[in-house]
Amino acid sequence: MTELAAKAARLDDTDQLAGVRERFVLDDTVYLDGNSLGALPASVPGRIEDVVRRQWGADRIGSWAEGGWWTAPERVGDRIAPLVQAASGQIVVGDSTSVNVFKAVVAAARMAAADGDGRREILVDGTTFPTDGYIAASAARMTGCTLRPVEPARLPDALGERTAVVLMNHVDYRTGRLHDLPALTAAVHAAGGYAVWDLCHSAGALPVGLDAHRVDLAVGCTYKYLNGGPGSPAFLYVRRDLQNRFDSPLPGWSSHAEPFRMGAEYTPASGAARGRVGTPDILSLLALEEALTVWDGVPVDAVRAKSLALTDFFLECVTAYVPAGLVEPLTPARHEERGSQVALRCPDAAEVMKRLIDSGVTGDVRPPDILRFGFAPLYTRFTDAERAARTLARTLRT
Amino acid sequence: MTELAAKAARLDDTDQLAGVRERFVLDDTVYLDGNSLGALPASVPGRIEDVVRRQWGADRIGSWAEGGWWTAPERVGDRIAPLVQAASGQIVVGDSTSVNVFKAVVAAARMAAADGDGRREILVDGTTFPTDGYIAASAARMTGCTLRPVEPARLPDALGERTAVVLMNHVDYRTGRLHDLPALTAAVHAAGGYAVWDLCHSAGALPVGLDAHRVDLAVGCTYKYLNGGPGSPAFLYVRRDLQNRFDSPLPGWSSHAEPFRMGAEYTPASGAARGRVGTPDILSLLALEEALTVWDGVPVDAVRAKSLALTDFFLECVTAYVPAGLVEPLTPARHEERGSQVALRCPDAAEVMKRLIDSGVTGDVRPPDILRFGFAPLYTRFTDAERAARTLARTLRT
Repeated sequence: MTELAAKAARLDDTDQLAGVRERFVLDDTVYLDGNSLGALPASVPGRIEDVVRRQWGADRIGSWAEGGWWTAPERVGDRIAPLVQAASGQIVVGDSTSVNVFKAVVAAARMAAADGDGRREILVDGTTFPTDGYIAASAARMTGCTLRPVEPARLPDALGERTAVVLMNHVDYRTGRLHDLPALTAAVHAAGGYAVWDLCHSAGALPVGLDAHRVDLAVGCTYKYLNGGPGSPAFLYVRRDLQNRFDSPLPGWSSHAEPFRMGAEYTPASGAARGRVGTPDILSLLALEEALTVWDGVPVDAVRAKSLALTDFFLECVTAYVPAGLVEPLTPARHEERGSQVALRCPDAAEVMKRLIDSGVTGDVRPPDILRFGFAPLYTRFTDAERAARTLARTLRT
Repeated sequence: MTELAAKAARLDDTDQLAGVRERFVLDDTVYLDGNSLGALPASVPGRIEDVVRRQWGADRIGSWAEGGWWTAPERVGDRIAPLVQAASGQIVVGDSTSVNVFKAVVAAARMAAADGDGRREILVDGTTFPTDGYIAASAARMTGCTLRPVEPARLPDALGERTAVVLMNHVDYRTGRLHDLPALTAAVHAAGGYAVWDLCHSAGALPVGLDAHRVDLAVGCTYKYLNGGPGSPAFLYVRRDLQNRFDSPLPGWSSHAEPFRMGAEYTPASGAARGRVGTPDILSLLALEEALTVWDGVPVDAVRAKSLALTDFFLECVTAYVPAGLVEPLTPARHEERGSQVALRCPDAAEVMKRLIDSGVTGDVRPPDILRFGFAPLYTRFTDAERAARTLARTLRT
């Protein structure tokens, strides 16, 4: 056993979250792609079977009321709330991340328009996951705003009296860089704009502090660090004091104050429910609800501490095992700037990852040449990090 | 046994679709709410268990490519296509009905704008299920159009040189009235507009003839007569020759021509995939895919014939059993004007339905005073219709 392998074993022995791994279905694969699709929580199959066989199969239509289906979007939102440090009643779950980005950016642009000081520019993170940029462009087009992509580092200089909305990613999906949400939100507010954050790569990986930092609106997916399953519904946060000003571009019947009156006039619900659109997708929502039970008793601060320890240790192993110059870490060394993944620039990244996967280490690649390793602290071990780095070194040498 | 009960038994004996009922999980309840939530197909629980335990739990991220997850929206769309008489490659599945109404109406309004003849009015079915009206209002607001609700019977008179888009329901969700899709579509086209149809209450219940009647765009839900499960994803049809003109208000990454290049510029996919938005919701999509297997070998014409026979027979039983004046049928007597449900106006409808459900007959109510009985031809028996009418008569007498 190498010195680092022994260190990994010691770190696992003293890991206060080590036992949480048992709440997941895992095997011998080193699974470092939980930042793309979280692993299966062990209790989800049983819950889904109950939802399908008993609630749908036997109770059928009665489950909408008595089975708690109708209220699931807000109930599941309230389970996510503590993970992003939001008080209850501000998060609703449903639709994809893309659809929620549209709701959030349009609603924020309308708040800016209602403020009446002529702010008509939307700034979007120029390094964003593409869907945010595409959807922000549509939101700008449909609200009469202009759109300007800005590198996150240049955002403070780009803010001004035309700034209506800023859409930023909390963590860069390629490099794993963590942006300074408190400072940037404060800067957007100081400039008079609304801050919309995309939390896809931070929710469930680190403390977000939505309420404390007075974020205006936020969206996030639930299939990465929240383990909701493939394509599980996204969430939308609207800060409580903005809810009455939330003017949705998708005012479906499910967001009505009295949906079952089925009236011709639209009267929006109050609270988080205003962010709903159509009939909630129950199978996926309740799989997610069950998946969130793995968080019982797990402090987010401990998750963050383990995430940093894991990524530190992985980088240490990479430095030790991989000959200099074969890969280049893109993820910042400073903890304040690091999410929960490690990105390594590497020629032939796609081919290297294919061989890694064949060798039992699953990560993924992002264009053009990035190897991406996600560290989901609830189930990733230090021995996994060591084995991944060792396998990577072997793969690169052959 | 009454004469009608004997007739019901004879009709069941000669029903060529009788055997299809075995493909569903059903019990002694007379379930006449399949127009709200279709019954559970018997093979769905096993498929979902496989998707969850094997595809997600064991194969994890690999299932996106090798497990056929990524291509599910078009593949499941192609399974729906023959049920609404559309050639393949024109239907995509994902998002809620409300979100798809938004895509369709905005895209149609943009086609009208591109035609350049100043058409800026959207007409919407004034008796529509509310979400269509709410979403059409948002689509009008965001495309610079005006919106006018019109009673379906008055639609031909309302069409004119300002007509950009007409959004109609194929079947009225309250009364069960079937509108004349071929004639109205032709009238919209003759006036120079685009026809968008909501097929929520017709897909899976009767032949729609989307291609034959040159419908422009259509949406429909999959949890009623298509039995996809609670809140299962909706479908969007864009006629093939309009696909290159489909300019989506929700251009998410999943609708990109090369989504995995993750480029900053948006280039829409060709074909049905252009109607996608975000990451597909796999659990619900694959439950729906499995649910659609109940249609194997089932001709839609036979489904329509049985639907009319069932509703005719139910009305006959109601007339025979229920004292005159206690209920008033709202569903048209003429077959050409009838969907697959029977609506009865009845004082104290909510209380009556509660007692019916307690007596083993499940339907539902719609404001203000409508008892609604849906007849899903794949699993509803003539004996169910007779028992429902008999139970209704007893309920109304006590």
